Amino acid sequence: MAGNTFGKNFTLTTFGESHGEAIGGIIDGCPANITIDFDAIQHELNRRKPGQSNIVTQRKESDTVQFLSGIFEGKTTGTPIGFIIPNENHKSKDYGHLTNHFRPSHADFTYQKKYGIRDYRGGGRSSARETACRVVAGAIAKQIIQPIQITAFVSAIGNVSIGKPYQALDFSKIETNVVRCPDAEVALQMEDLIKTTRKQGDTLGGVITCVIQNVPIGLGNPVFDRLEADLAKAMLSINATKGFEIGSGFAGTQMSGSQHNDYFNADGSTKTNFSGGVQGGISNGMDVYFNVAFKPVATLMQPQEMLSESGEINTVVGKGRHDVCVVPRAVPIVEAMSALVFADFMR
Amino acid sequence: MAGNTFGKNFTLTTFGESHGEAIGGIIDGCPANITIDFDAIQHELNRRKPGQSNIVTQRKESDTVQFLSGIFEGKTTGTPIGFIIPNENHKSKDYGHLTNHFRPSHADFTYQKKYGIRDYRGGGRSSARETACRVVAGAIAKQIIQPIQITAFVSAIGNVSIGKPYQALDFSKIETNVVRCPDAEVALQMEDLIKTTRKQGDTLGGVITCVIQNVPIGLGNPVFDRLEADLAKAMLSINATKGFEIGSGFAGTQMSGSQHNDYFNADGSTKTNFSGGVQGGISNGMDVYFNVAFKPVATLMQPQEMLSESGEINTVVGKGRHDVCVVPRAVPIVEAMSALVFADFMR
Amino acid sequence: MAGNTFGKNFTLTTFGESHGEAIGGIIDGCPANITIDFDAIQHELNRRKPGQSNIVTQRKESDTVQFLSGIFEGKTTGTPIGFIIPNENHKSKDYGHLTNHFRPSHADFTYQKKYGIRDYRGGGRSSARETACRVVAGAIAKQIIQPIQITAFVSAIGNVSIGKPYQALDFSKIETNVVRCPDAEVALQMEDLIKTTRKQGDTLGGVITCVIQNVPIGLGNPVFDRLEADLAKAMLSINATKGFEIGSGFAGTQMSGSQHNDYFNADGSTKTNFSGGVQGGISNGMDVYFNVAFKPVATLMQPQEMLSESGEINTVVGKGRHDVCVVPRAVPIVEAMSALVFADFMR
Amino acid sequence: MAGNTFGKNFTLTTFGESHGEAIGGIIDGCPANITIDFDAIQHELNRRKPGQSNIVTQRKESDTVQFLSGIFEGKTTGTPIGFIIPNENHKSKDYGHLTNHFRPSHADFTYQKKYGIRDYRGGGRSSARETACRVVAGAIAKQIIQPIQITAFVSAIGNVSIGKPYQALDFSKIETNVVRCPDAEVALQMEDLIKTTRKQGDTLGGVITCVIQNVPIGLGNPVFDRLEADLAKAMLSINATKGFEIGSGFAGTQMSGSQHNDYFNADGSTKTNFSGGVQGGISNGMDVYFNVAFKPVATLMQPQEMLSESGEINTVVGKGRHDVCVVPRAVPIVEAMSALVFADFMR
Repeated sequence: MAGNTFGKNFTLTTFGESHGEAIGGIIDGCPANITIDFDAIQHELNRRKPGQSNIVTQRKESDTVQFLSGIFEGKTTGTPIGFIIPNENHKSKDYGHLTNHFRPSHADFTYQKKYGIRDYRGGGRSSARETACRVVAGAIAKQIIQPIQITAFVSAIGNVSIGKPYQALDFSKIETNVVRCPDAEVALQMEDLIKTTRKQGDTLGGVITCVIQNVPIGLGNPVFDRLEADLAKAMLSINATKGFEIGSGFAGTQMSGSQHNDYFNADGSTKTNFSGGVQGGISNGMDVYFNVAFKPVATLMQPQEMLSESGEINTVVGKGRHDVCVVPRAVPIVEAMSALVFADFMR
Repeated sequence: MAGNTFGKNFTLTTFGESHGEAIGGIIDGCPANITIDFDAIQHELNRRKPGQSNIVTQRKESDTVQFLSGIFEGKTTGTPIGFIIPNENHKSKDYGHLTNHFRPSHADFTYQKKYGIRDYRGGGRSSARETACRVVAGAIAKQIIQPIQITAFVSAIGNVSIGKPYQALDFSKIETNVVRCPDAEVALQMEDLIKTTRKQGDTLGGVITCVIQNVPIGLGNPVFDRLEADLAKAMLSINATKGFEIGSGFAGTQMSGSQHNDYFNADGSTKTNFSGGVQGGISNGMDVYFNVAFKPVATLMQPQEMLSESGEINTVVGKGRHDVCVVPRAVPIVEAMSALVFADFMR
Repeated sequence: MAGNTFGKNFTLTTFGESHGEAIGGIIDGCPANITIDFDAIQHELNRRKPGQSNIVTQRKESDTVQFLSGIFEGKTTGTPIGFIIPNENHKSKDYGHLTNHFRPSHADFTYQKKYGIRDYRGGGRSSARETACRVVAGAIAKQIIQPIQITAFVSAIGNVSIGKPYQALDFSKIETNVVRCPDAEVALQMEDLIKTTRKQGDTLGGVITCVIQNVPIGLGNPVFDRLEADLAKAMLSINATKGFEIGSGFAGTQMSGSQHNDYFNADGSTKTNFSGGVQGGISNGMDVYFNVAFKPVATLMQPQEMLSESGEINTVVGKGRHDVCVVPRAVPIVEAMSALVFADFMR
Repeated sequence: MAGNTFGKNFTLTTFGESHGEAIGGIIDGCPANITIDFDAIQHELNRRKPGQSNIVTQRKESDTVQFLSGIFEGKTTGTPIGFIIPNENHKSKDYGHLTNHFRPSHADFTYQKKYGIRDYRGGGRSSARETACRVVAGAIAKQIIQPIQITAFVSAIGNVSIGKPYQALDFSKIETNVVRCPDAEVALQMEDLIKTTRKQGDTLGGVITCVIQNVPIGLGNPVFDRLEADLAKAMLSINATKGFEIGSGFAGTQMSGSQHNDYFNADGSTKTNFSGGVQGGISNGMDVYFNVAFKPVATLMQPQEMLSESGEINTVVGKGRHDVCVVPRAVPIVEAMSALVFADFMR
C-alpha cells in the first residue's frame, strides 16, 4: 500500500490535502454496538485545532467532523465508519509565493521529486491538517479500549523541561493551561518562552510524554509487531517527530542491569517500571509510558532561503499564520495514535 | 497476523525457538537474477554470533545458514527464499531452574500470561537467537539495495560515549576492536567497562548509531508509512531496545527553528542535515542517520529475585553463559533491520 | 482487516450504507501525474445506476461522484483519492416492514447474528449500492492500465444464452441494447424474458462474460496470489455471484489433455487459449476471459415468507422498486473489479 | 507481497521448489495450547502424495514433515510453526530435455518471461509438490476449527460424473476407492476411464465437490472479504483449477428467484440451501458446499510440440512419471485450502 492506512485489525485509512474540499477517513474493524460519544470526539478535535489559544496559530478552522456511515441510531454497526472534515478556510492566495519554491525542512522538495507533482497549497498532503483525521479515529478508539486510559502532556518546550517523573504530576492540571503542561510553574515558563520566540520570528520544538494506564496483560506480539514497535511507528508517523523512547529510554542505557531490572511483587506487578510496561513486546500490566521528540516548526516568520524549482536559492518572506510551537496542539495527536495502536491489538 | 512477518513488499517471516531443532525464515519478494554473495551473509552472521570475542558470551553456536529454495545456480529466481539455521547447542539442562520461574525484565511472564504456555528453554521465541534470521535476510537485502551503504557502530556503552558526530569518525576502524566503536581510545574504555562490570556479575546497555549513505531521493511514503516510522518500528522490534531518534533527535527539541532548518544548496542537497535525510516521510538524498538505545542485559550472573508460577518470590542463582553487554553484537542486527526497511521501500 | 479494502498496492477501501448520508471510498496507490477523464468515470456510474432503462429498477439515484482529494488541477498527485457519492433518495419509509423481518436469501439474518445490530434500511451495507464505489475506482483503474482493454457483456439471462465464443461477437454492439448482450437477436429474447418474468413478480439470474485484451506477459504471482485467484476473489466479492470460471472452465474438465493443451506459435502466443491467458498464475499475453454466475434477485414483487426476529414465519408483501434482473447493470461492476485486479498487479 | 502468504490472521507462508533441498512453510497465528495430532497430519500428506495407488504417478516421495518450532511438548505455543519436507527423490536427470523448452500449458514460459530465470527441474516452484505444504497447514487448521467438518470428494472425472446431490452420498465411502468418489459404481467407471486414457498417453481433468458442515453463523465479512470470495481465491490458487461455484452455482443462474430463495424455518435454518451456506458474504449456519474444476493434466506421455527459448517449435517426447489425472490426489488439497480459509476467519 501507499502508506495511508494504519493498523491491521482496527484500521484507519485517511485522505485529504489541506486546501482540497475536505479531508477524511475510513475506520474499519470497529466493533459493533458501541454507543458513540460524539461530544468526546469533537472535544479531541478542538484540542488539536488552530486558534484555540493565544499561543497557537490564529488560523480559523472549524474542524467539524461529519460521519457518513457505520453508525446507526447512535451505535456502531460493525461496518466501516466513513467521515469527512470539510476544509472551510482555504485562503489559497497565501501560498502563491510557494508555487515554485521548496521551503527548507519541508516536504515540498521530496514530494516533488517522488511524484513529479504536488499540491503546493499549504503543504497539501504533508500539512499537519491531516492529523485531524487521526484525532477523530483516535477518539473513537479511546471509547472502545476502555478502561485503558491514555494521557499525554507537554514535558518540555525548547530548553524548558518539567524535570519530574510522571508519577509526581497531577494529570488533572494538564488542560488548565494553554501549553498542556501539568506543572503550573513550568507551564508559565513555557508560555513565556513561546511568546519571546514568536517576537523573534523563530520557532520551538519540545517533548510530549504519554502515559497509558489500566493496560491489560498480553497486548502486543513477540518479534516484529511488538507493542513498543508499533507505538514507535505510530509516533514517528506524526509530522515533525524525531524520536521515541519507552520506559527508561536513552537514559536507561547508562544504568546497570541490577539497577534496571524490574523485580516482581508476588501479584505479578513490578517494584519499578523501567521497562515501560512491556516485556518481550507484550504488555505486562504496568503503565506504558514514553516520550516523543518534536523538532522546532520549520515555517518561520522571517525571511528564509528557499530553493526554486529551477535551481536558484532565493530569499523568501514567510506568510500565513503559523504556530511558533506545535507541541501543545500535538498532545491529542499523540493520544490518538496511541489509542489506535491499542485498539488494533485489542481486536 | 501474529507479528512474525516484517515488510510489505520485501518480506521476512521467521520462526524458531532458541532450543528447538532450528530457527529459520522465508524471504519473499526478492528480485530475480541477483547473484548471491554467500560469504557476505556468513560474515554478517559471524558478527552477530556468540563466542566471537572475549567480551561476549562464550556459548558456542555455529550459526550456519542453509538455503533451501529460491536460489538456483547461485542466483535468485524471484521465488521465496527459505532458510534454516540449526540449533546445535541446546544444553537444555541449564534451564531447568527456570521451568517454574519468571525472570525479572524478561518475556517469561508475559508469554505465559498471553499464551498460557511457553518454551522456557533459553527464552524460547524471545531469545535473541531469533535475530540471526534477521541478519540472514538483512545480508541479502544489503546486496539488493546497493549502492546504498549501511554502517552501524557502537556510540555508547553505559556512561562511556563517543561524543562526536559521525562525520568525524573513520568507519574503517569499526571492526578493528571487539566493541565495534570507530574511536580506538573510546573503544578501550568501553572494553574496560565491560570487563569491570563482568567481574561484578552485572550488565550494561548502550547506544548504536546507524548511518545510511548513498540514499536515493524518494524512498518512504507520506503519512503513516514514513521512512523514519518504519525504521523506528524496525529498531524497536529488536530485543532490548528502548529508544530511537533520527537526525537531531531529542537534542533537536532544544534548538530553534532557525538553527534547525536545513537550508538548500542549489543542487538540492542541504547545508546541514538535522532532518536525518527525511522530509515528510520521504528520503531527500542526504545521509539517513539515527541512534538506537539498548537497555542493560536482564540476565545477571548474580542471585536475583524471581516470581514463581505459584506466586512466590524466590532468589535464584543465574546460570548459563550470557553477555555482559549485547550492544557490540547488536550492530549487525541494526544494520540488517535497516536493510530490510530500505529493501521494502525499493520494491 | 474487516474486509472493506481490496488490493495490496492499488487499493480501494469503501464505506457506506444505502440509506446513510453518502457512500464513498479511498483509492490509495494510484500513480501520480495521470490526467483523469472525469466523464469516463461518470459514464461507468451511469451504466450501473438504477433507472437507466425500462428493464431495470425505476428508483432514481443520481450517482454523482465528488472527488475530495488526490487530484490537483486535473491530475493525480500520488496521494490518496477520497470520494463520496451522496445518497439522495433515501425513502426510508419503504423499509419499515423489514425492521423486524429477515428476508429470505438476503444478508439481513447473517448481519444481525454477526453484529447484533444492522441498518435495515434498504439492506444497509449489503445493498448493491455499495458497488457504485467499486465502479468509481475501477473507472480510474481502467485509465491507468491502458492499453489493457476490459470488456464485459451479458452472455446469459435465465435459460437464454448467447451460445457463441466471444471471438464470434461484435463488442461494439454491447451498449446498443438494454441487456448489454452483443448478439442483437439473443438480446431481444433476453428482454422478452425479463418482461415476462416481471409480470410474474419473479426474478432472474444470468452470466456475465468478461474479456481482457492487450494483457502484458507477467502479471500475477505464483502460488497464492495468482492472477486467476485474485480475479475469482474479485468476482465472488460482488453481490449475488455464485461462480467463476476462467478459460475452458467447468467444460474444460471434460476435455483430454491433448485437446486442452495450448500449443505455442513461434512468437510465444498460443494456437488455442483454453488456459484463458494464464499459466502458473501469471498472464501469458493471450486474452484473459472468464464467466461469472449471478443468482436470481432475491427480492420478489410477490408475497414471501420471512422470519421475524422473534422467530415467527410471516408472509410479507414486497415493496419498493427492484430489479427483475441485475445482470445488465452488473456489467460495469465486473469490469471495474477486473480493472482493480489488474491495476493492483501493475503497481 | 510476492504472493507466497495465504491468510490474514491464521497465515501460511510457503517456500520451495520440487527439486531443491526441501519445501516448507511457516504457520503464523495458530492459537496456543492446542495438542497436535501428528498422525492426522501425516495421514493428509499420504492422501496427497504420489505413488499411493496404481492410478496415480508412481514417483516415490516420502513426504515426511519435520516440525522445527512452535510446538513444545506436543502443544502449540502460539509462536510460528516452521516446518520442512525434504525433497528426497530429485532425479534431475529426467528434466534435461526441458532446460531450453517451454512445455505447452505449463508455467515454464510465464516464469521465464516474468523473472528472466527459472528452476526448470520438475517445474520448480510451479510444481504441484508445493501443495504438500498447504496440506500440512490445512491439517493443523482442521484441528483448530473443530467441530467444523470438511469433506471433499471427486464428483467427476472427464465426462464421468456422479450426478447426485451430496446429500444422497455416503461420505464414509470416499476413501474406499482410489478415485475418492463416494459412489462405488461411478468410481469404477472413473477408474476404467483413467486406465484407458493412460494407455492413450493422454490425461484427464475433473471436478471436486467440497462440503463443510457444522459451520457456525457469522464467519466471513461483508463486501470484499466474503467467505465465498476467500474460498474462491483459495481454490483458484491451486494448480490446474479453472473454476469455482458455490451453492447453486452456474446452474442456479437458470432458476427463478421464487425457486432459488431459501425460505427460513423458525429456528433460522433454511428449507433449501441454494445459497451454499452464505448470505452477504457471511455464513448462515447451513452447509457450505462448492465445486472446483480441474483442467486435464498438461504433461502428456506422448510427443508434443514445445517452444524453444530460441523461438523454434520442436516435438519433444515426454519423460518422467506423471499422473493421468490429479483430481483424486487433489482432494486433500481442496480440504486443506478450505480449512485455511475457515481458520483465518475464526482467528
